[in-house]
Amino acid sequence: MADKKLVAEITSMDEDFTQWYTDVCIKADLIAYSHIKGFMVIKPYGYALWENMQRLLDDRFKATGVQNVYMPMLIPESLLKKEGELVNGFAPEVAWVTAGGTEPLTERLAVRPTSETVFSDFYKDDVHSYRDLPRLYNQWCSVVRWEKETRPFLRSREFLWQEGHTIHATKEEAEERTQQMLNIYSDFLAEDMAIPTIKGQKTEKEKFAGAEATYTVEALMHDGRALQSGTSHFFGQKFSEAYDITFTDKDNQLKYVWQTSWGVTTRMIGAMIMVHGDNRGLVIPPHIAPIQVDIVPIQQKKEGVLDKAYEIRDMLKGFKVKVDDTDKSPGFKFSEQEMRGIPLRIEIGPRDIEAGKCVICRRDTFEKIETPIDGIQEKVAEVLAAMQKDMLAKAKAHMDEMTYEAASTEDFRKHFENQLGFVKAMWCGEKECEEKIKEDLGVTSRCIPFEQKKLSDTCVCCGKPAKKMVIWAKAY
Amino acid sequence: MADKKLVAEITSMDEDFTQWYTDVCIKADLIAYSHIKGFMVIKPYGYALWENMQRLLDDRFKATGVQNVYMPMLIPESLLKKEGELVNGFAPEVAWVTAGGTEPLTERLAVRPTSETVFSDFYKDDVHSYRDLPRLYNQWCSVVRWEKETRPFLRSREFLWQEGHTIHATKEEAEERTQQMLNIYSDFLAEDMAIPTIKGQKTEKEKFAGAEATYTVEALMHDGRALQSGTSHFFGQKFSEAYDITFTDKDNQLKYVWQTSWGVTTRMIGAMIMVHGDNRGLVIPPHIAPIQVDIVPIQQKKEGVLDKAYEIRDMLKGFKVKVDDTDKSPGFKFSEQEMRGIPLRIEIGPRDIEAGKCVICRRDTFEKIETPIDGIQEKVAEVLAAMQKDMLAKAKAHMDEMTYEAASTEDFRKHFENQLGFVKAMWCGEKECEEKIKEDLGVTSRCIPFEQKKLSDTCVCCGKPAKKMVIWAKAY
Repeated sequence: MADKKLVAEITSMDEDFTQWYTDVCIKADLIAYSHIKGFMVIKPYGYALWENMQRLLDDRFKATGVQNVYMPMLIPESLLKKEGELVNGFAPEVAWVTAGGTEPLTERLAVRPTSETVFSDFYKDDVHSYRDLPRLYNQWCSVVRWEKETRPFLRSREFLWQEGHTIHATKEEAEERTQQMLNIYSDFLAEDMAIPTIKGQKTEKEKFAGAEATYTVEALMHDGRALQSGTSHFFGQKFSEAYDITFTDKDNQLKYVWQTSWGVTTRMIGAMIMVHGDNRGLVIPPHIAPIQVDIVPIQQKKEGVLDKAYEIRDMLKGFKVKVDDTDKSPGFKFSEQEMRGIPLRIEIGPRDIEAGKCVICRRDTFEKIETPIDGIQEKVAEVLAAMQKDMLAKAKAHMDEMTYEAASTEDFRKHFENQLGFVKAMWCGEKECEEKIKEDLGVTSRCIPFEQKKLSDTCVCCGKPAKKMVIWAKAY
Repeated sequence: MADKKLVAEITSMDEDFTQWYTDVCIKADLIAYSHIKGFMVIKPYGYALWENMQRLLDDRFKATGVQNVYMPMLIPESLLKKEGELVNGFAPEVAWVTAGGTEPLTERLAVRPTSETVFSDFYKDDVHSYRDLPRLYNQWCSVVRWEKETRPFLRSREFLWQEGHTIHATKEEAEERTQQMLNIYSDFLAEDMAIPTIKGQKTEKEKFAGAEATYTVEALMHDGRALQSGTSHFFGQKFSEAYDITFTDKDNQLKYVWQTSWGVTTRMIGAMIMVHGDNRGLVIPPHIAPIQVDIVPIQQKKEGVLDKAYEIRDMLKGFKVKVDDTDKSPGFKFSEQEMRGIPLRIEIGPRDIEAGKCVICRRDTFEKIETPIDGIQEKVAEVLAAMQKDMLAKAKAHMDEMTYEAASTEDFRKHFENQLGFVKAMWCGEKECEEKIKEDLGVTSRCIPFEQKKLSDTCVCCGKPAKKMVIWAKAY
């Protein structure tokens, strides 16, 4: 049956989560593969999602004084190499430009993998006095990292992101900005994307190359794997020393600036798919949905049905509404709306019209709400708000349900032999233990959460005295 | 005097227009040079301008059904080479990626100079039936072209732009779209940027590599040089044949699609500077100004002055308003506001407050308008609207004044030996004449304007029978 066909084409998430994910990316029309490995085409529906996310985040940034700029895409090798840790971290992943037109270049240029170096080089000449500080710059752009394994949104050789780079007169102010941006990510993910996260600090092993401290928001996907969803870095004076970014302070002393950077990427779309999606396809939180309401006329050839559908659309001012007036069957239209994760479907047929009613169907719960057409505007606002809130609550309940505590080595190992999820366990602070856990179980430290709890006295790996509680998981 | 210093630092445009232009770009805080030739940093003030332009243009695009997407930044050499004319046109300007991480690539990848090839490659698999058409896609991104001579905004190795790429079932529809987008550019430039343009078709010699026809909007800068400010291309079926983009039409026949592309770039910011700027700096049309009103308190340490300034700011709802409450002198603040081209300055001092008045000063005419504080909202709206309108009228008058007709070869040559401007003159249609005129006079054909007039019977270069009236100019 044509009605069922669209749905039948996606693999069940319970059977094969990985294949389900790829199916949704393609069938919900978010992306297409290009002819270069690891490079994808973001199609209109996927890009509209990104535009909505951009606007909401950009407003949050600007409300804290952040300004947008644009920095060169290509970075001379010598400039990239000034800070040793960063280049060592990124060297294996850089795409190199070696010729401009018919001429070979005298120096290789990196396609930016991240722009700390370029911002530092710019700030060096741009800042002289404490009066010039802070500088709170951000850019929206694409970056290239030559990853070996690639998957749509989650890990690709080119991806879209924003990278904020700020410099400050004092350590305290830079540290505060690092936390402020992490909180913006966490708030945006919770309030707009309905994705709960755990905030914490990355271990030395997992932190960003060149950073003094990296903070992260970690989300848990439906299958129990973790996804790093945003990071904020405190650089101290590492880059300002390497790139010589100094300023004359109030006390007339020449000092190095204190620096941060922070970024989120199109990867958040991957998180949205894997946190909210189900076996019928995408489920998009109302705040970021490109289309919020899909009106499907029933028996649309009957007189007055299409007119009423358009009338309802016109009543829904301030919402993103589409009338599906194509000649497909209602069942096919339902499947398509469900696949694309449009939050609400309104069904309107001759009998509804007669009764002055219509049916609202929620994408997240499939709940059907019969409602008078009069007052539809308020009802839709109410249902969308409820859905936005319930989606976060549901995701939070799922995360909590899949978060475990392991007090002993045995508990810890046994857990990961059988299942996924976040596991809280104590750690001695040594890199060797992280490496061993990764090697034995494929599990990484996601973060040292800000909310600490003492589960036992000893490291879950080596048995030596424990220093911190860490969240562990298998991750994307 | 400190007050004068800021202004004294820019070269007079009458003395050295080129140096004036560079001075304005730097002193008005639009850009900074980076450490790679031809790559610039777009600073917050310059980027805010671009964001405003983007939003206004994007709204115009979307109102005609255009959807945004994102295509890969890197293009395999073999893909780029499928359409011979395009690659020949761009080959000397392509930046080539030859290594990914530590591995050399088996095939060179071009950093996109333009994306006809990538869109074509995508459309090939994306479109099957006439029901899938038209596709009206656009992307906002950066492109790289290895130019020899570079100047901020006008010609740089990397620049920001939008590129629209559409495919259609019929030739007529594609031709209509080509004109529609040209009209959007012309309307946007006139209505939002206050820049008048002449619409026309490029000659064979000047058209885009691979296009069947290129249409252009040509603007005239204050110094009398032309600037190509936007182009729209009709490709016919050239790319669809080269890339095999076919569809099954209503008549069940397999056909090639008809294609267009169209783009504008950050170059339009250069046009704005050179059309509206003066010896005090930038003059920004109100519609695209990052700050529309700069409130400068006079004797701001006197009680009540700053409060009144903030009060006026709060009264100006819906406008982009800044109170300059820094400790600089009013004269310095005036210079800065003028340099940055902020449309209106409001001066408010103790005596004004006593009288319940303030002074509005227009950046374009320096007119001072004394006005009651009550009703300031309406007055500002009125003055901004007048300024937007007057700026276009002034630019139009300047363009008309510098547009000449040359009926004879002698007139034509004599004109360009002594002055600049647009010159209308007849042309035989031969490339050789264009080449000779360029060689002898440094003058190029800007376009064959849609509005034709028969000025004489013979070509202004060779004396043979003329076919078309062409607009000629020295250009940026």
